[in-house]
Amino acid sequence: MASLISEGASSVSEMEVRIKSCDEATAADLTWCHGIAMGSPTNLGSMAWKMKKWWDTVAVEKWLEVDGKFACSFSSSAGWGGGNETACNAMATVLLNFGFLYFGVTDYVGKGLTPHYGAVLAGEPREEKEKEACRRLGRRLAEWVALYKEGRSEFNPLMAEYPRDPKHFS
Amino acid sequence: MASLISEGASSVSEMEVRIKSCDEATAADLTWCHGIAMGSPTNLGSMAWKMKKWWDTVAVEKWLEVDGKFACSFSSSAGWGGGNETACNAMATVLLNFGFLYFGVTDYVGKGLTPHYGAVLAGEPREEKEKEACRRLGRRLAEWVALYKEGRSEFNPLMAEYPRDPKHFS
Amino acid sequence: MASLISEGASSVSEMEVRIKSCDEATAADLTWCHGIAMGSPTNLGSMAWKMKKWWDTVAVEKWLEVDGKFACSFSSSAGWGGGNETACNAMATVLLNFGFLYFGVTDYVGKGLTPHYGAVLAGEPREEKEKEACRRLGRRLAEWVALYKEGRSEFNPLMAEYPRDPKHFS
Amino acid sequence: MASLISEGASSVSEMEVRIKSCDEATAADLTWCHGIAMGSPTNLGSMAWKMKKWWDTVAVEKWLEVDGKFACSFSSSAGWGGGNETACNAMATVLLNFGFLYFGVTDYVGKGLTPHYGAVLAGEPREEKEKEACRRLGRRLAEWVALYKEGRSEFNPLMAEYPRDPKHFS
Repeated sequence: MASLISEGASSVSEMEVRIKSCDEATAADLTWCHGIAMGSPTNLGSMAWKMKKWWDTVAVEKWLEVDGKFACSFSSSAGWGGGNETACNAMATVLLNFGFLYFGVTDYVGKGLTPHYGAVLAGEPREEKEKEACRRLGRRLAEWVALYKEGRSEFNPLMAEYPRDPKHFS
Repeated sequence: MASLISEGASSVSEMEVRIKSCDEATAADLTWCHGIAMGSPTNLGSMAWKMKKWWDTVAVEKWLEVDGKFACSFSSSAGWGGGNETACNAMATVLLNFGFLYFGVTDYVGKGLTPHYGAVLAGEPREEKEKEACRRLGRRLAEWVALYKEGRSEFNPLMAEYPRDPKHFS
Repeated sequence: MASLISEGASSVSEMEVRIKSCDEATAADLTWCHGIAMGSPTNLGSMAWKMKKWWDTVAVEKWLEVDGKFACSFSSSAGWGGGNETACNAMATVLLNFGFLYFGVTDYVGKGLTPHYGAVLAGEPREEKEKEACRRLGRRLAEWVALYKEGRSEFNPLMAEYPRDPKHFS
Repeated sequence: MASLISEGASSVSEMEVRIKSCDEATAADLTWCHGIAMGSPTNLGSMAWKMKKWWDTVAVEKWLEVDGKFACSFSSSAGWGGGNETACNAMATVLLNFGFLYFGVTDYVGKGLTPHYGAVLAGEPREEKEKEACRRLGRRLAEWVALYKEGRSEFNPLMAEYPRDPKHFS
């Protein structure tokens, strides 16, 4: 999912994207970025403990210093109904605590699939629409960064040419 | 979904089950029952306003009088990722406020589907496993009622003969 | 609370602020604004049904048309522990569904009080810090609007001269 | 808080209560108990990573084997509005995943304080009502266990002689 999200974010021209695992990310990465897509496997309906540890012990050094960045989340559970949305909510709570501007994606990305509160899947991305959910989340993150951090109004997703309305897929 | 949940609950012998819409349910129904499966279409990631209105204006009469009943929730969104889990969480909040003992279902009911925090679907139940998610939730509700309200230990779901483990479906 | 939030938002120069109840707000108000502070009394740990009805039946007309506005929430419960945070979360779910950029406030506003996930109170605002929690939320909303919608970088709250750090109040 | 909750639970006659930290609790403790009050400091609006680690790596061994136990949660944040309710919700998600019957407490325990979704405090328990919120949560846990696991109907909290109604404290 991270790879596809990166692909989506990179589809906005001149957007620099970095993928970091909990093991390698530093507090300085938080300062560097304009936005973040935070992802974790769904573990007991929440983020994995290693992810929580990173925020509790590493990121916390930058608390009160990184407000106003853009953020979203993604998670994959073993099955639908298994907590991928609740895991995204758990990540949202952490991100809000740091003053991030958190968003979901209104768009549908195929029949019966949308990343309204973060990109969620059961298992890994296989179908095209599942891949597109990831790409769209990354794209949206980059669009908000381009629009609000860089003043590039042509990236306002309300002007997007890709299909967004669920009616398109029904 | 309500109909299938009712079917599942009724599979526990001598369990009386009633299906009530917001328009017809009364506060007395809350007093009558030993447990409840609260369901709503997913509207904006939460329950429909009519359901909230019922609890705010009708059920509230019984607040502090119905603690200790068993409860669960179910919801269907237009798409996966569209908030069916968050809608179940919203219903859980209401039920907890009334002192209900709220539960989800650990079981998997097919490959890649589980009602961990309530039965959730995108659209209506079509596949057999989707129907089983509903039935299982209702069954579990009736099992807890049978076990804890009626002392019928043979209904402890830990003794259940139906497959529960995700490994069974992988 | 709404009045104090309005006061805080208005402390950013040239910011036009409108207070609207569910009874008077129209879908056009959603289109008009750059940001919103959504508030409700805490009813059963969530927003009042009238507020949900407004979004389900009035605002829904603008769905897919208002993405990228800034949003936060506030709620007052009868007591601490009575669900004012969960009510803010419920409002966040609705706002995210509409594509809003949702935020909380990292700042402490007095000893032992912060609007991390929205401004929350037990009862009405009485103590100065309770009033400040409301003002700060409104101020922050206006700051993000000034910074990101109007390019006025002097309103970046990271540059704020008011005390933000909990250490200041300990 | 844990100590006061233990005190409250122990006020139900013949109830054996154990307090365990994450460092010392084993998976066997989960099997042993009839109910659990799960508590953590509020860290970024959720449970501490060490608590999550315990469930992800230790408790998980008993998953599918401990359904139907009774559970609640408690958390203390640095300030009101700082996420103690959202931390309780995060713990609820974990507990529901294990098939626990999760509850909050309808009762008010003093003017302007209730453990509706778990016992929550800003800082440590100081005022009498803050201590009572903890005791009441533990008491309620023990009451449900006594009522439903041991058939001691005299412990049904609906028959409780202690004041429960918010009107009592207004």
